[in-house]
Amino acid sequence: MGSAASRVSPNKPKYKTSKNADKPARGIQVFIGPYIHSLSWTEPLVVQPNGVIGVKDGKIVIVDTAENLDTLKASHSFGDSDIIKLQEGEFLMPGLIDTHIHAPQYPNVGIGLDLPLLEWLDKYTFPLEAKYKDPKFAELVYRKVVEKTINNGTTTASYFTTIHTSSSEVMADMVEAYGQRALVGKVCMDCYSPDYYVETTEESLSGTTEFVKKILDRKNPLVLPTITPRFALTCSEDLLKGLGAIAKEHDVHIQTHLDESIPEIERAMELFPQYKNYADIYGGTGLLSSKAIMAHCVHITDEELEILKENNTSISHCPTSNNSLLSGHCPVKKLRNAGVKVGLGTDVAGGYTPSILEEMRHAIMTAKTLSIEGRESEPLTFREALYLATLGGAEALAMEQEIGNFQVGKSFDALVIGLEHELSPIDLFPESDINVLVEKFIMLGDDRNIVKVFVNGQLVKSY
Amino acid sequence: MGSAASRVSPNKPKYKTSKNADKPARGIQVFIGPYIHSLSWTEPLVVQPNGVIGVKDGKIVIVDTAENLDTLKASHSFGDSDIIKLQEGEFLMPGLIDTHIHAPQYPNVGIGLDLPLLEWLDKYTFPLEAKYKDPKFAELVYRKVVEKTINNGTTTASYFTTIHTSSSEVMADMVEAYGQRALVGKVCMDCYSPDYYVETTEESLSGTTEFVKKILDRKNPLVLPTITPRFALTCSEDLLKGLGAIAKEHDVHIQTHLDESIPEIERAMELFPQYKNYADIYGGTGLLSSKAIMAHCVHITDEELEILKENNTSISHCPTSNNSLLSGHCPVKKLRNAGVKVGLGTDVAGGYTPSILEEMRHAIMTAKTLSIEGRESEPLTFREALYLATLGGAEALAMEQEIGNFQVGKSFDALVIGLEHELSPIDLFPESDINVLVEKFIMLGDDRNIVKVFVNGQLVKSY
Ligand SMILES: [Zn+2]
Ligand SMILES: [Zn+2]
Repeated sequence: MGSAASRVSPNKPKYKTSKNADKPARGIQVFIGPYIHSLSWTEPLVVQPNGVIGVKDGKIVIVDTAENLDTLKASHSFGDSDIIKLQEGEFLMPGLIDTHIHAPQYPNVGIGLDLPLLEWLDKYTFPLEAKYKDPKFAELVYRKVVEKTINNGTTTASYFTTIHTSSSEVMADMVEAYGQRALVGKVCMDCYSPDYYVETTEESLSGTTEFVKKILDRKNPLVLPTITPRFALTCSEDLLKGLGAIAKEHDVHIQTHLDESIPEIERAMELFPQYKNYADIYGGTGLLSSKAIMAHCVHITDEELEILKENNTSISHCPTSNNSLLSGHCPVKKLRNAGVKVGLGTDVAGGYTPSILEEMRHAIMTAKTLSIEGRESEPLTFREALYLATLGGAEALAMEQEIGNFQVGKSFDALVIGLEHELSPIDLFPESDINVLVEKFIMLGDDRNIVKVFVNGQLVKSY
Repeated sequence: MGSAASRVSPNKPKYKTSKNADKPARGIQVFIGPYIHSLSWTEPLVVQPNGVIGVKDGKIVIVDTAENLDTLKASHSFGDSDIIKLQEGEFLMPGLIDTHIHAPQYPNVGIGLDLPLLEWLDKYTFPLEAKYKDPKFAELVYRKVVEKTINNGTTTASYFTTIHTSSSEVMADMVEAYGQRALVGKVCMDCYSPDYYVETTEESLSGTTEFVKKILDRKNPLVLPTITPRFALTCSEDLLKGLGAIAKEHDVHIQTHLDESIPEIERAMELFPQYKNYADIYGGTGLLSSKAIMAHCVHITDEELEILKENNTSISHCPTSNNSLLSGHCPVKKLRNAGVKVGLGTDVAGGYTPSILEEMRHAIMTAKTLSIEGRESEPLTFREALYLATLGGAEALAMEQEIGNFQVGKSFDALVIGLEHELSPIDLFPESDINVLVEKFIMLGDDRNIVKVFVNGQLVKSY
């Protein structure tokens, strides 16, 4: 933990997030009960009704079934006091991954969705983001953002902040304080931006370098910096190239927006006529890498898709936002089937929900919309939506060696889902087996069903 | 209350619905605080930050503003002890109206949405509906349905049950027991149905007559019978005509499905080639009236729309269901602008949510989808969605003289919405005025924000 973390101590959170990321778990913890996870895009839902998952020092050390319990006790030296038995109606699943969220826009979530993207940015978004010049305002909002996303089961998020370096550090403080796993990116924009919310190229580059170094200096493996040009429309070529160089130098993540709306694409090509397409603007400036995440790609061409594949660059699919801002309907199944890595993003506040669970439903609904409109034949199943929200997200963030499902050696980023808790919004009826519980949770569940949240083995929310 | 009501006493409801429909409110109750409601399709949201609403014997007797409080006290003879002051973050709004919901399908809500309409009926829906031959099963489920819809702020619902007369009475019992306002319709289907779930024409007509008489005999103005042919695909011409005659004889409501999916329309015209279009099948058999509600109308033609208008028949728009079952995207704004009455329906379990609040969001999203796909130019605003969920629903059910908004003489069917309660899923930030509260509630709220529900002046849910 970096020194900055001590500056901010969590309030008593309204949503019963519980912070004990500083307490190392002692010994082994063994969960017994049903678990579900994705093994791959083509094996998106595996249900194990009688599972055993063992965790030590934040890492998964056992993934097995209850019939082998006695053998496991002997081989892993644990006893009954180390066992946590899931209750009736509970199951374990991997934590949800939000691959694209704008933390500073959270006060606007659910409001002001009456305009398309570019007008919406000018009227609602830039004026709000400019307020984060004041780190106190950042602290007020960012605390709520981290509480809210953890409450909704987001164990890993890729955050955009604003152009302000010091309030971007506040975001990293908050993530650390609550024990969430995150990428945090100071936003860069040096042109075609409002007078009140713009940097010089030099400020943007030096601010980014400073921010990257400070975050890396914390040596907290859960909180990493990410290079964040807003998008080609507000960045000069010099800035994009400079950011590409910083990303390469420090081997860090990159995130930006690509092919979100038609007017945006037209404007990008107006500004960068020397590049062959929008993806090429990022590719040609060093911003496409295996650690780069392109939000949206609603209107991506086959040629651009090839560029992403060549660079092993991923897509963040944000269906709520795409529909809300009238951007379009992203053919996510086609993109994923083409072999590109895809995760889900809430894109708060273009998307009106901070919940990846709800985003799963909107991904399903968007795929159905494409099917209805004759633009994609096969809808997305709830199983595939689960993949996108967990393992797909981990792959999109190039973290699939660390998180995304339950495999020995990965970190224990997990949720205990409860369907029979007092506050659950879901009614169950006779003959509801584990498969029914899973489907009902995905289609009807909310934060009340997310009864425990673990990040790296640490309990960060508990009812 | 009919005698049947005493057969069923509510369990302690999980969701803190509180039943006191039998206790008449004494004297006047005066609410002071913000209220919102719709005045019309073209004036869909009126916000009164300093409102006064007085209620006596279930009816609204005052709609005024706080500056006139002293005068009102004198003219309506009430004192401070009759006043209920809304708390910080609270406002009053009219109760939500679900114009189309299948109560028996509730156990399937959120599951089995992998098939289009006609296949979905055969695989998931008919087998479940057949189970309501057992009134005990009906009691188990229908109790949960009424609890759940009241918990979600549905003060009036138009329910489909099943073909079974006695379990349909159980539905009426439940509605009475919990104090909800409802139309309840025994489903009719006498052909092209599974062997295990079908009636003869005679059984269907006599069962309907019996059901209508029994419900009318209860003389409970809150619970009315409604004639319910499932749809043209499972009804003979004799049955449709017979049902039309019963509706006319008793002057009761009618509900069915119209123009939901393309294969359904094709099949209807195959079965009834003597009618000029699908709407005409119902029109020609006496099933279109000013008290008739046609669910869906996704693919309605201009000619059919004229038929609905001539009969002053309304449309129940069910966006979640339409997208989930791949039926299509209903151009609701166009239909409403054409002058047809339109309300919202959850269409559980074709729709995966029992919440009209969520249906409002899906109505907005569907209108945006049409806009994206170039099929309707203007999206639906959250204000218009509020209209559809309240006054529009009242008009669709031909109950606008009784409910739908706050006007002197109407019944007090109302919700107290709270955004600052402990369990609220909504975060507020400085400078959130009443307009922000309303928009955030519509886009982000859930049952936790619906802190009180009144039907006809009686408190039926309270946190
Ligand atoms: Zn974004
Ligand atoms: Zn229906």
